[in-house]
Amino acid sequence: MEKQRPLILVSNDDGITAKGISELIKFLRPIGEVVVMAPDTPRSGTACSLTTKEPIHYQLLRKDVGLTVYKCSGTPADCVKLAFETVLDRKPDLVVAGINHGDNSSVNVHYSGTMGVVMEGCLKGVPSIGFSLCSFEPNADFEPAGPYVRQIVQAVLDRGLPPLTCLNVNFPDTKELKGIRICEQAKGQWTNEWENFAHRGDAHYYWLVGEFVDTDADNEKNDHWALRNGYVAITPTTVDVTARALLEDMKTWF
Amino acid sequence: MEKQRPLILVSNDDGITAKGISELIKFLRPIGEVVVMAPDTPRSGTACSLTTKEPIHYQLLRKDVGLTVYKCSGTPADCVKLAFETVLDRKPDLVVAGINHGDNSSVNVHYSGTMGVVMEGCLKGVPSIGFSLCSFEPNADFEPAGPYVRQIVQAVLDRGLPPLTCLNVNFPDTKELKGIRICEQAKGQWTNEWENFAHRGDAHYYWLVGEFVDTDADNEKNDHWALRNGYVAITPTTVDVTARALLEDMKTWF
Repeated sequence: MEKQRPLILVSNDDGITAKGISELIKFLRPIGEVVVMAPDTPRSGTACSLTTKEPIHYQLLRKDVGLTVYKCSGTPADCVKLAFETVLDRKPDLVVAGINHGDNSSVNVHYSGTMGVVMEGCLKGVPSIGFSLCSFEPNADFEPAGPYVRQIVQAVLDRGLPPLTCLNVNFPDTKELKGIRICEQAKGQWTNEWENFAHRGDAHYYWLVGEFVDTDADNEKNDHWALRNGYVAITPTTVDVTARALLEDMKTWF
Repeated sequence: MEKQRPLILVSNDDGITAKGISELIKFLRPIGEVVVMAPDTPRSGTACSLTTKEPIHYQLLRKDVGLTVYKCSGTPADCVKLAFETVLDRKPDLVVAGINHGDNSSVNVHYSGTMGVVMEGCLKGVPSIGFSLCSFEPNADFEPAGPYVRQIVQAVLDRGLPPLTCLNVNFPDTKELKGIRICEQAKGQWTNEWENFAHRGDAHYYWLVGEFVDTDADNEKNDHWALRNGYVAITPTTVDVTARALLEDMKTWF
């Protein structure tokens, strides 16, 4: 009997119409059976948020050999939760998110809806990978990422990932990728985050903007360094956020 | 010269009208100067999400000796980011979130807007604490938590917290609190997460519900165990989510 092809659940946070998810699907179809459940509108910056105050729904868009596509009114993490209990007939072998239009390295991991997909898949016990490209262009060039996406996905299918561990993969926006680096999450901070517009009378409104300050810029171990220097950055990421270094010390506090 | 009183930024995810934040303010006023910037509507389950597609605004509600209160149209994490760059005249000594109406222990840390406040404060380099009570009742009894809130806040003001580290504090819903336990994040999963309602024709809609399955229920180190057994659970939490255990191993993969 032929071995069953891997079942891969795909989602993103830029929404079902983004170029990045089309490109990801194209890269993944040769590797496995692909089921897509993606937000029907862009949901950037939604982290692991869930829809708790209204119901959500999904709709079939396309059913082809090896590819089924749904759109969903929920958040990226909702998409994963809903797919597991509705359209998937078995536990998937992999959850893959992206390819995001924009950098999710460093502290951006905490705001990213792309990584919301990934962390949700990981919490459900499935090896999960997020792919992001450091370009916000709607028509960005994802082609150079293709061979790396396939290589990384195949490696994870072959080897698995440890429990509670997922991958945050970021690509610099260049045709000349220099290879893969396994990285730590760069330390840094967003500053000057708000653009202030005067409104009627004394009112003001504020748009989120911001500049990222890398406080550890020369550290070659970091994902931000890798991206600045033309490498594909893989940051192994945990959903067990216990700060173990403080555990024993704090026991003497009270 | 008298020592300056600690400046404490307060926010939450249940919104400015929730009883939990009023109670938290009451507990904190004897300790320091309190500035509140809280969402104008409930924002449960919004994690670290940010408002990226529309502008936000804030409004002064009350200015009293040692207490200034604003409401904000953004998410919990937006509230922190906006307060830092607008209403605060110096970097606060502490960011405190809550008291949440509902349990944020275990994997809930990833979905919690309360912890979104805390992680944002932490990323900005300020010691940050989230307080949550295991009751969704709008009129829940926060009184038993009061002495512990003061004790924990004072301890953090005195000792500080290590970089990239914050606290997730959860209270069981009981008058008979048995004391504090320093905990790890419990392993577990949400299952049966959707209630399916038939709509017109073939349509369905789905409400998020769910049952939490504690896969490590007998482990006395865990926050979920502490809560079930009547203890105040403090889970030291990191915003550096690098999975260090996988770093070296993965370098041999490619």
